[in-house]
Amino acid sequence: MNMAMQMMESHQKDMPVQGMDMTMMQDCIEACSACEQACTMCSSTMMGDGMSMCMNMCMNTADMTNTMMRMMMRPAGMHMESMMAALQATMTMCMACADECMKHKDMHADCAMCAEACRQCAMACQKMMDSVSGAKPMA
Amino acid sequence: MNMAMQMMESHQKDMPVQGMDMTMMQDCIEACSACEQACTMCSSTMMGDGMSMCMNMCMNTADMTNTMMRMMMRPAGMHMESMMAALQATMTMCMACADECMKHKDMHADCAMCAEACRQCAMACQKMMDSVSGAKPMA
Amino acid sequence: MNMAMQMMESHQKDMPVQGMDMTMMQDCIEACSACEQACTMCSSTMMGDGMSMCMNMCMNTADMTNTMMRMMMRPAGMHMESMMAALQATMTMCMACADECMKHKDMHADCAMCAEACRQCAMACQKMMDSVSGAKPMA
Amino acid sequence: MNMAMQMMESHQKDMPVQGMDMTMMQDCIEACSACEQACTMCSSTMMGDGMSMCMNMCMNTADMTNTMMRMMMRPAGMHMESMMAALQATMTMCMACADECMKHKDMHADCAMCAEACRQCAMACQKMMDSVSGAKPMA
Repeated sequence: MNMAMQMMESHQKDMPVQGMDMTMMQDCIEACSACEQACTMCSSTMMGDGMSMCMNMCMNTADMTNTMMRMMMRPAGMHMESMMAALQATMTMCMACADECMKHKDMHADCAMCAEACRQCAMACQKMMDSVSGAKPMA
Repeated sequence: MNMAMQMMESHQKDMPVQGMDMTMMQDCIEACSACEQACTMCSSTMMGDGMSMCMNMCMNTADMTNTMMRMMMRPAGMHMESMMAALQATMTMCMACADECMKHKDMHADCAMCAEACRQCAMACQKMMDSVSGAKPMA
Repeated sequence: MNMAMQMMESHQKDMPVQGMDMTMMQDCIEACSACEQACTMCSSTMMGDGMSMCMNMCMNTADMTNTMMRMMMRPAGMHMESMMAALQATMTMCMACADECMKHKDMHADCAMCAEACRQCAMACQKMMDSVSGAKPMA
Repeated sequence: MNMAMQMMESHQKDMPVQGMDMTMMQDCIEACSACEQACTMCSSTMMGDGMSMCMNMCMNTADMTNTMMRMMMRPAGMHMESMMAALQATMTMCMACADECMKHKDMHADCAMCAEACRQCAMACQKMMDSVSGAKPMA
């Protein structure tokens, strides 16, 4: 367990957003970090005809996953509606970016790897959202 | 009109997201930039009992508005569903941050100004979303 | 004067880095913000053979100028040696990015505008550094 | 080895900055990433009298290490003078942030961990700089 994760564990009690599972959140933080790195590299190396959409979606996803990661690392500022909207945006962007990258997977090994990192991040965000929705029983 | 705006005008033709008004988008970019700056300063100066939520929400909003601004400045990577989800997240976070800042407006002049920048940014995002929805006639 | 600048004025007294002129710092903040925007757009639209260096240097400069801008907006965390090293890095990157962009200025109007934004930012950073050095008379 | 590192290995040949060791660069990327995370958490949880400098230096360091990490992940945009200036800035900021955090290590476990992440990042940056200087024998 790295240092940031140790710090998170010690702040679990300060976490004002109920229904968010800390182990799940740590997985989501790591998935966001891996996705930011893969998208940064992928957008850096994309060049040539027809790669403009892919490159730009990767840049957007790198920025969004960094923002999402930081939001999860600020336990004292968690606001449920904001978290859910940001998770939704991250998930949507990661899925769209994975789809775009998959179009070039045979030409660019970077795109295949980036698509995988995006998909894993999208799934981690979806899991977080599901766990929270699950915490609110349907009355 | 500043340089980035001149650059945007020249790329209007590359913009693959139909139904997004360029003038409106420029207003939204400027509102995001102003909000990032106000939130960065506000979070930097918040200290003392009970200010933790405010400080952390401002940090989150600074990161999100920067991400949103950059997304709007990448015309070749625009993907409608991603744009709408990110606008929704930015709007939600700005409104929540404005509400939190308003609680401290009498004690902290920074919070009053920051709340105003957040509100203006939320409105600019809402306007963008409305214009797009309006572009899709209800068949 | 925008809101962030009003907020900065009110915190001038908290500024622990002596010898930094607030008006000059406001100019530098605006130059960093304009440079981040121009570089974000320029890197987004660069495509084609031989543009890889330009695109990637613009991405780096966009990230660095955002970091520099934020550092200047956190008066309570200013540490002289850190400020000077970051100004030096920003100035170096802006000058190199301007040089690279100028190579393509005839083909890409974006590059000509981006180079100008980079040069103005480099000059604003240099001015800040000079003013600080100037504040320390050589005994 | 994670995906971003696999991507980096495959782009080693595109790396225009000679004298930078790829294994060392991967260590530096990981140290920057860990430092960004530790500083983000540390700045989020700092509150109370006398913690303002610490909180703000951590925010600055989180932004700078993210910028530095991204620069190292963009092989096609590497420019030696820019890399060296950014490494110098990151190293300076990490050392200063570690010193500030160490002042509070007995009161705040977060600060002790954050100081350690900052120190490791500063050392990784120093190593990168040394290896490059070493590559240029003094004629």
